[in-house]
Amino acid sequence: MSDNVVWHSHPVDQPTRAEQKNQRPLVIWFTGLSASGKSTIAGALEQILTHQGYHTYLLDGDNVRHGLCGDLGFSDADRQENIRRVGEVAKLMADAGLISLAAFISPFCADRQIVREIMPDGQFVEVFVDAPLEVCQERDPKGLYAKAERGEIKHFTGIDSPYEAPEQPELRIPAGEVSVAEAVNMLLAYLHEVGALRAGYRPVEQEG
Amino acid sequence: MSDNVVWHSHPVDQPTRAEQKNQRPLVIWFTGLSASGKSTIAGALEQILTHQGYHTYLLDGDNVRHGLCGDLGFSDADRQENIRRVGEVAKLMADAGLISLAAFISPFCADRQIVREIMPDGQFVEVFVDAPLEVCQERDPKGLYAKAERGEIKHFTGIDSPYEAPEQPELRIPAGEVSVAEAVNMLLAYLHEVGALRAGYRPVEQEG
Repeated sequence: MSDNVVWHSHPVDQPTRAEQKNQRPLVIWFTGLSASGKSTIAGALEQILTHQGYHTYLLDGDNVRHGLCGDLGFSDADRQENIRRVGEVAKLMADAGLISLAAFISPFCADRQIVREIMPDGQFVEVFVDAPLEVCQERDPKGLYAKAERGEIKHFTGIDSPYEAPEQPELRIPAGEVSVAEAVNMLLAYLHEVGALRAGYRPVEQEG
Repeated sequence: MSDNVVWHSHPVDQPTRAEQKNQRPLVIWFTGLSASGKSTIAGALEQILTHQGYHTYLLDGDNVRHGLCGDLGFSDADRQENIRRVGEVAKLMADAGLISLAAFISPFCADRQIVREIMPDGQFVEVFVDAPLEVCQERDPKGLYAKAERGEIKHFTGIDSPYEAPEQPELRIPAGEVSVAEAVNMLLAYLHEVGALRAGYRPVEQEG
């Protein structure tokens, strides 16, 4: 026997990559108003999943708005193209075997539906991070709602541009009423229930 | 001690994801004429790396031209935008901790340079798959050169659109003279030499 590896032509496919990572590839898509908590909850879920040995990647404004979508503005057409590209990348990430998380306002049902439809069956989880507009306006961590109300930002979702709530999301998180840890536990429970996680997940406690 | 996981806010970053996969993230960028062997060699390298436990993803025309770049044609501007987007996705894949392979003609130095410059230092490997035009024309597996010569395809690289060879690629593969297995071994030797692979790689034998 030779020590060498003999190359046979078996293209590497999604099942191979998923098996290597011992996980089910997924796109977990967080939609909701600005300041509803999408990125915070998605980031916390990513930390827990990574800590538990899952291979993840989180797409959000921070890593796509200056790069992949750096040529796009905030018109309806550009927002639509933004979500389309992010959806395609989330799909490629899942094709790579990863649990791909995406946190974008993604205000329009039709755009989210397009992402759902390009994904293989059972690999898309829509999470509605549902905080009331008043709560988001009160939080307003970047002062964006204040600016939008003064007319300094146009087409701001919830102010002068609509947010179309998902009618049948896989999961709704009442983000005005629950802590980040509670939101993550809702997500873990849901993912566990649908068999997306390995047996034996443990709930998360709030940071001390 | 509680059984529960306590969440502390440590965002998951590239070093964390790379460590989890026990590998160095990388973009390996294959450039060369149509039919030079880019996709075949990249696919073979991906198979070997996956077989050896690395986490990889191969970007090529098959998985981006109908999706992420489905809105683009083959004008100079569209080809440039195609490479720009693929470069950004390859960067995200490397940020996810993966060894990301990309196989695209990418005929223009300036476009490849843009991809090199967005990558962190030491995470970009340009591989020039260098087969003479005559060899590629002879192979012509999809009959594209024949069509281009008859004028049925415009802006075809090597016929009526230039190919700008890399001046200082990290690796040049004389693809008209070596087998796929030999090309893969050149790649493995290079990656090993620069410390991109774990110790103890084994060369590959041609498929029987």
